[in-house]
Amino acid sequence: MVQSVEMVEVSARDGLQNEPEMLATEVKLEMIRRAVACGLRRMEVASFVNPRKVPQMADAAEVMAGLPRDDGVTYIALALNRRGFERAAEAGAREVNFVLAASEAFAGRNSGASTAALAEALEEVVQLASPAGIRVSATVSVAFGCPFEGETPPARVTELVRRAAGAGAFEIALADTIGVADPGRVRALFADARAAAPDVQLRAHFHNTRNTALANALAAVEAGVHVIDGSLAGIGGCPFAPGAAGNVPTEDLVYMFERMGLDTGVDLDGAIDAARFIGGALGKSTPGMVSRAGGFPAAAI
Amino acid sequence: MVQSVEMVEVSARDGLQNEPEMLATEVKLEMIRRAVACGLRRMEVASFVNPRKVPQMADAAEVMAGLPRDDGVTYIALALNRRGFERAAEAGAREVNFVLAASEAFAGRNSGASTAALAEALEEVVQLASPAGIRVSATVSVAFGCPFEGETPPARVTELVRRAAGAGAFEIALADTIGVADPGRVRALFADARAAAPDVQLRAHFHNTRNTALANALAAVEAGVHVIDGSLAGIGGCPFAPGAAGNVPTEDLVYMFERMGLDTGVDLDGAIDAARFIGGALGKSTPGMVSRAGGFPAAAI
Repeated sequence: MVQSVEMVEVSARDGLQNEPEMLATEVKLEMIRRAVACGLRRMEVASFVNPRKVPQMADAAEVMAGLPRDDGVTYIALALNRRGFERAAEAGAREVNFVLAASEAFAGRNSGASTAALAEALEEVVQLASPAGIRVSATVSVAFGCPFEGETPPARVTELVRRAAGAGAFEIALADTIGVADPGRVRALFADARAAAPDVQLRAHFHNTRNTALANALAAVEAGVHVIDGSLAGIGGCPFAPGAAGNVPTEDLVYMFERMGLDTGVDLDGAIDAARFIGGALGKSTPGMVSRAGGFPAAAI
Repeated sequence: MVQSVEMVEVSARDGLQNEPEMLATEVKLEMIRRAVACGLRRMEVASFVNPRKVPQMADAAEVMAGLPRDDGVTYIALALNRRGFERAAEAGAREVNFVLAASEAFAGRNSGASTAALAEALEEVVQLASPAGIRVSATVSVAFGCPFEGETPPARVTELVRRAAGAGAFEIALADTIGVADPGRVRALFADARAAAPDVQLRAHFHNTRNTALANALAAVEAGVHVIDGSLAGIGGCPFAPGAAGNVPTEDLVYMFERMGLDTGVDLDGAIDAARFIGGALGKSTPGMVSRAGGFPAAAI
């Protein structure tokens, strides 16, 4: 089992894109600054997608321009196609996450393309990115189930993993976009992915739609996956996945992992502060639980 | 690893005792009928405690008298002392759960006794129960941490487990009363308990205060514990444990276990119906998530 976990913070991208409240660029940047301050060292900060479809991301270039400069922090921009990659590159992205889909229905709704066209676009994007010194990761969305097609056949996921690895993605994330993974499937699918792409770093992205995200994250880490996505305060979802609830809250993952003796590099109190800031900015109660209950043992005990 | 899990339903006892809303006896009985209808076969239904301190349980005898008669269902009454046991026995209980505590501060506030006095009372209760054909289980509360004393030394828990086994408890539950267990501690403490009482059935009771309850339940089951408590809709807590939030939702556990291929004997749609009934009866939004999101794959897909 791994001894440390790299947390990837997705609140400013996957988190905000499904929130009805539109935050000002400066508020997003304050979210990001607080995430950096609590020790998060890798984070999705924007997606370069159609602003008519995802208006929350319309200021992606402005967010990129305003990012705190910290040599130890890696910022990730998300793209769904070549045009998105080019915009991300123009905005100065050094790491781009390219989104594939494991079902045709989801590929069509999320990206307006077929699953095969997305895989081809990833190949093209990696070829553009490499000479520019930009590294590219790939996410296989709806890897554990699709809101339109139901169960996702694991073979479809491993085929995409193989193809993404062949294209040159340095990392491949399996995303439980709608929160239907279970620990057994997590272990099995990541083992399949490891076999399909033994030299590529794997990453896990869970939603807590059905209360299983922390159990799934535990299963992933114990299966040797050491890069786990979280979203401070548990905000987020996917605008094109009906019923998708919040991402797994970063501070809850940090609490569990650190209490198990796994090093995340994240200061829990700082993460709680950042989560509370996000709840305040959105003006609503958010799903994260440790930000309400506090860590343990509490300082007062 | 176990292939099936026995779910113990605690909504009518641990669930309701921390809800500000007082439910009529008939509503409690309807909760219990719906729990039986969805396949739950063992459940805490009342506690025989001081009604001035826990007014939600003042009708314990009336609840016991009105229980649906189903030969396949075991009802559990909770007691904190000899007097409570005697009242439970008079009310017809065939199984009594006796509550120990792993910290002096919690023992004092929850039971008005020392930890040693509670262990002695358990011995006395088992001696009264055996000739009456009543079986007695013991719960070690605050086994993973105490709201007043902080971390609970594992040795204190295993000493109580040894003592409860010696007293003749047929089953011993380790309770994470305030939701501070993590999967690593769950595995370690249940392994210690197994070593301390190899012939006694173990049971796990988790609260989802910090979002870790399903991960903890997974860890318990994979450590060989096959009796897991849940509370439909995730209601409940402990009136004497500050900050204790809801019990782990039964329907969310059933969803996870069944999706992993573990047999719970519980019909998920029936459990969701029962959870929604409880939310309606309490007139509030409850913590359970599968009752909002539905199972997967949905029938509509």
